[in-house]
Amino acid sequence: MSSVIPKTVNPDLQKERNAASFKSEEFAAWWAGGEEKLKFNRGVRTYLSKDFDLNALGQLWYKSHEDIFEASTKAAIDLAKKLRVLQEERNPGGNDYWPGLFDTPVTWGLVPGGNPFGVMYVMLVNALKAQCTDEQYKEFGSKIENFQATGTYAQTELGHGTFLRGLEMRADYDPKTDEFLLNTPKITSYKWWPGGLGHSSNHCMVMAQLYIDNKSKGPHMFYVQVRDEETHEPLPGIHIGDIGKKMGFHGVNNGFLGMKNVRIPRTRMLMRHAQVHEGGKYVKSPANVLTYYAMVRTRCVVAKNNALMLAAAATISTRYSSVRRQSPINPNEPEPQIIDHVTQQLKLFPEIAASVAYRLASDYLWQLYDVTLDDINNGKYQRLPELHSLSCALKVLCSADSTAGVERLRLACGGHGYLSASNLCHLYSNATAACTYEGENTVLLLQIGRFLMKSWRASLSGATLAPTVSYLTEVQKNPEFGTWTGSWENLVKAMQYAAANKTRTAFKSLSKRLSIGQTEEEAANHTGIEFTQAGELHGRAFVFGSFVAEVTGPNAKKRSASLNRVLELLLELYLVNETLKQLGHLLQFINLTDTDLSQLQDRLEHTLTKLRPEAVAIVDGFDFSDIQLNSALGSYDGNAYERIFDSALKNPLNQKSVPKSFHSYLKPFVKSNI
Amino acid sequence: MSSVIPKTVNPDLQKERNAASFKSEEFAAWWAGGEEKLKFNRGVRTYLSKDFDLNALGQLWYKSHEDIFEASTKAAIDLAKKLRVLQEERNPGGNDYWPGLFDTPVTWGLVPGGNPFGVMYVMLVNALKAQCTDEQYKEFGSKIENFQATGTYAQTELGHGTFLRGLEMRADYDPKTDEFLLNTPKITSYKWWPGGLGHSSNHCMVMAQLYIDNKSKGPHMFYVQVRDEETHEPLPGIHIGDIGKKMGFHGVNNGFLGMKNVRIPRTRMLMRHAQVHEGGKYVKSPANVLTYYAMVRTRCVVAKNNALMLAAAATISTRYSSVRRQSPINPNEPEPQIIDHVTQQLKLFPEIAASVAYRLASDYLWQLYDVTLDDINNGKYQRLPELHSLSCALKVLCSADSTAGVERLRLACGGHGYLSASNLCHLYSNATAACTYEGENTVLLLQIGRFLMKSWRASLSGATLAPTVSYLTEVQKNPEFGTWTGSWENLVKAMQYAAANKTRTAFKSLSKRLSIGQTEEEAANHTGIEFTQAGELHGRAFVFGSFVAEVTGPNAKKRSASLNRVLELLLELYLVNETLKQLGHLLQFINLTDTDLSQLQDRLEHTLTKLRPEAVAIVDGFDFSDIQLNSALGSYDGNAYERIFDSALKNPLNQKSVPKSFHSYLKPFVKSNI
Repeated sequence: MSSVIPKTVNPDLQKERNAASFKSEEFAAWWAGGEEKLKFNRGVRTYLSKDFDLNALGQLWYKSHEDIFEASTKAAIDLAKKLRVLQEERNPGGNDYWPGLFDTPVTWGLVPGGNPFGVMYVMLVNALKAQCTDEQYKEFGSKIENFQATGTYAQTELGHGTFLRGLEMRADYDPKTDEFLLNTPKITSYKWWPGGLGHSSNHCMVMAQLYIDNKSKGPHMFYVQVRDEETHEPLPGIHIGDIGKKMGFHGVNNGFLGMKNVRIPRTRMLMRHAQVHEGGKYVKSPANVLTYYAMVRTRCVVAKNNALMLAAAATISTRYSSVRRQSPINPNEPEPQIIDHVTQQLKLFPEIAASVAYRLASDYLWQLYDVTLDDINNGKYQRLPELHSLSCALKVLCSADSTAGVERLRLACGGHGYLSASNLCHLYSNATAACTYEGENTVLLLQIGRFLMKSWRASLSGATLAPTVSYLTEVQKNPEFGTWTGSWENLVKAMQYAAANKTRTAFKSLSKRLSIGQTEEEAANHTGIEFTQAGELHGRAFVFGSFVAEVTGPNAKKRSASLNRVLELLLELYLVNETLKQLGHLLQFINLTDTDLSQLQDRLEHTLTKLRPEAVAIVDGFDFSDIQLNSALGSYDGNAYERIFDSALKNPLNQKSVPKSFHSYLKPFVKSNI
Repeated sequence: MSSVIPKTVNPDLQKERNAASFKSEEFAAWWAGGEEKLKFNRGVRTYLSKDFDLNALGQLWYKSHEDIFEASTKAAIDLAKKLRVLQEERNPGGNDYWPGLFDTPVTWGLVPGGNPFGVMYVMLVNALKAQCTDEQYKEFGSKIENFQATGTYAQTELGHGTFLRGLEMRADYDPKTDEFLLNTPKITSYKWWPGGLGHSSNHCMVMAQLYIDNKSKGPHMFYVQVRDEETHEPLPGIHIGDIGKKMGFHGVNNGFLGMKNVRIPRTRMLMRHAQVHEGGKYVKSPANVLTYYAMVRTRCVVAKNNALMLAAAATISTRYSSVRRQSPINPNEPEPQIIDHVTQQLKLFPEIAASVAYRLASDYLWQLYDVTLDDINNGKYQRLPELHSLSCALKVLCSADSTAGVERLRLACGGHGYLSASNLCHLYSNATAACTYEGENTVLLLQIGRFLMKSWRASLSGATLAPTVSYLTEVQKNPEFGTWTGSWENLVKAMQYAAANKTRTAFKSLSKRLSIGQTEEEAANHTGIEFTQAGELHGRAFVFGSFVAEVTGPNAKKRSASLNRVLELLLELYLVNETLKQLGHLLQFINLTDTDLSQLQDRLEHTLTKLRPEAVAIVDGFDFSDIQLNSALGSYDGNAYERIFDSALKNPLNQKSVPKSFHSYLKPFVKSNI
């Protein structure tokens, strides 16, 4: 029955493409980071889509938990093999294809249940590089990098997450055998959550409390074999398995691990920084900067990926809104494309703009990361707190706003957005997970709040602040906002001004609590709500600034006037809409007249109208393939109804006309009522 | 291994219960609507929990789509049988147990995948009663009510939802045979979404365009048999099946229906209001008031159920926050219960308060519904537009806010909130579905907006408005807000004032657009954003008012002082927190000083602190059983870790130590890298 899907593009969608004022292809090249990069991405995607079974993809969600896991393992290995071939063919000896692309947006859709070996490459390999001695990396780290063994990174426990010193798993040094003895004292000390831990890993990097002579040395990392390499059976003393069904990432095989008197050689503690010598002499790590730095890197990845999830959802909903027709605006006229309803535009276009805003902000974060890495290699750590705080802020905003945005976009598709075949619910469950992993969002906002307090205090005593917080000093010097002009620069200034004043009032509350005798920590807990508000506004001010910088800065000269016009519209929409959304905070510190406010509302509505003819071409410029989107509602050809229909017919439940339960349950009950 | 779960209550949770200042039992009786009602609910639950397999419940999410449907059918029939017995035992001839409780909160958890016969009782039976003639109801309507046949209500099509006149399925009257000929002209005219349509129904109430002599008479309802009663095979010309996997409601069997030249007798058109006589004479419905009224009723149900979903999520997260310990507030002190962190309190307590606010508002709505029903029976329709608009507003707010609230509560549980075993993700997917079904939220907000425009215009020309919008007239008469006191009454007034002023500015925008020549409909579309804002604030003002009325009104005398104190705290929290959240709107119209604002922030923090010792006892007072909550994190005994652990061990994937894919995919790939 797949013949129900036409081979042609839906005419409403084609009309949209024809009517745009700029070239989608130019947007796509800019978005990809240049024409070469765009070509590279597309080349990889075309290669990977060969022999790819799109039907099997759609069937995945009907399977049982176990079968989804099995299918995800197969899909991940199939992908790995293809990438390995591609690497050999196109750049032998390199790693840009394999494993470089293994768990990245380019390969989205190919392992739709989630990659059970994702954590292995996104985290474990980097962590091993950062924490192994050179000998250790050669001995076992490189085996993971080369997929000669499989592993994951195990830190969180059933009863402990954020607070590392609270972890309970322990590693006792035994001088008699020169080994560590690993133990899980209680249920709450089981490792819990690592991706791929359940049934996919035969090794594991485990964080445990190091004990020497029964004295705690705090948490350290150990490399532990958990399954036999030949049989894959758990080794003696190892209790390991899958933690069970989750909201999403069904194939990722998040696992648990308990250990009972598991012995590993002393040399399996990762000793690049701290060491335990034979006999039990302990040498402390000189600094934990590099560990810290690995977390910053992962947050950069999260921020960017979540911006792209939002862009994918915006693509699906915008295309669907162009082919769906509903509710005449004037009676007796035909039903319009729903994208013509202003309220629908308000659901779609701000999310398109936010995708761009967050992608650009995360690009800027990556640049800062690279600069700071150079500094660190030269022994300069000054910008590290700033970078840490900024990476937290972007991770929080990108995860929280993309989650809310994906949900708004899903709801914008009405009932059909609720279908698995829309893929919007899977984008949602992936996006929202990022609010929790790699630093829970509220915990991170509190850290940013503390950084802002420190910065505010330092600035008060005359210190020069890092560039991305220097606006605090400016507001201290010039406490008046000045004139509201509503220009882009003025809106950036307004968001900074709100962030600075929230910092000021939080600092005031904190100081008041300190003055009545609360400890620094108690006072910080009680001021927690204000800390998180200041942290959030600080992040928003940064995103405002980086978006304005990209659109109005020197890069504009490299783009055509028509592309720049569209980017300016997106910038205008993002700034105006977000300013209106944050009005509650802004109006506390800045007086806006009725005219100012109605001008903002007018600008919002005006920009929606201007973006109306460009919307489809913009999301085309995000350049997702149908496999990446994996959505009956959002395919490039716009044949949404036919694809929904086709997908329903393939539902395994429809392969029999009468279900078993009719005979065993339903019919007997009906008969008993007659 | 289920022995890991202690038989005792977690001591941290017990401590909370002991420390509360009021009696949970009194709260529970008040919440249930009296002690008798509480006893009734508990009696039913105890009876239904007998022989109930709680383990099977936890296994459901691991199954395939097909197996979840089969299990849901079994669970629904098991429940129906038990309720039927209960009815016979306790109140023979009545319907308060069976089918009265079949798909209601009292039986939550017993059909956790969703009840495939839910739509049959929540909608179809009521719709048949409202639209059948007495003879028709006797002939086939009562068969559905008595579960002698199964059916559903089929209106929405693949390509058409909100706009009923756009529906495409057609029913042509054939005078030769005195029959209707039903046809689905294209893919987009397939019925799509009705619960239970796929494989659970053998009959169907179908909305189709009535044609007589090829002339359209608009949408009418028809009763159609779709499957054979003995074999359950689809009848000739019927194309029927399940629409596929969704975000939630996996067992509900939402279906599609296409028809090709299906003939039904003329007397199978539902003719209580409109009629087609033999030969084709058409008699129009005198009024569509009763159809309209059925929708209002369903929205009352949705509003209340969603308030209860939020209460269930709040119960789970509050209990978990009392047993989870994390991150010392003062270094060197033990990790506190996370409910001690102020930022955590801000995640939990406002949702508890919102559950109460929405439950009370929906109670008030039910009262108004009953009053208006009496009026209608006496031929008075004056309050119907007000009731319609209020039911829309509450449906929108309860669905949208409960969805956002459930998600905040889920995130408040950190990683474990992401587990299916938490049940929070299922509460989420159930809650969010209500944003779309029974009137898409934005569509409803636009309707409220139009009602507000009409009311504003009527009031300007001197008409007396209905009670719940009379504040519009007051603001027209006294355009100044007056003094901000921050009292509860003043906060209600502020929300009404904001709603009235949003109405005023929207009316101004609308009038401006009309004056430049736009049609009423075009102008309404362009003013859509302001319409939705006004509609939302109107709803919020109502919820504010009904909460204040219940807490400070005459009912207070029936409650103890200690219970009243707790309800006052919840009211205070709800009003202050929601006022702060709506500050962006309020500050546009009302001047608040720095002092006013910091007083609100102080009141917020102060109330969180006061509610801290009461929180667990309040959620206990919501009186959900463990089966209703179905959550490893939220059980009454608070043994969250043990239950999470236990549930993971039962994961079918853990019943084998080595998965099949190790041998077929993983191992060969690993070996090929060595």
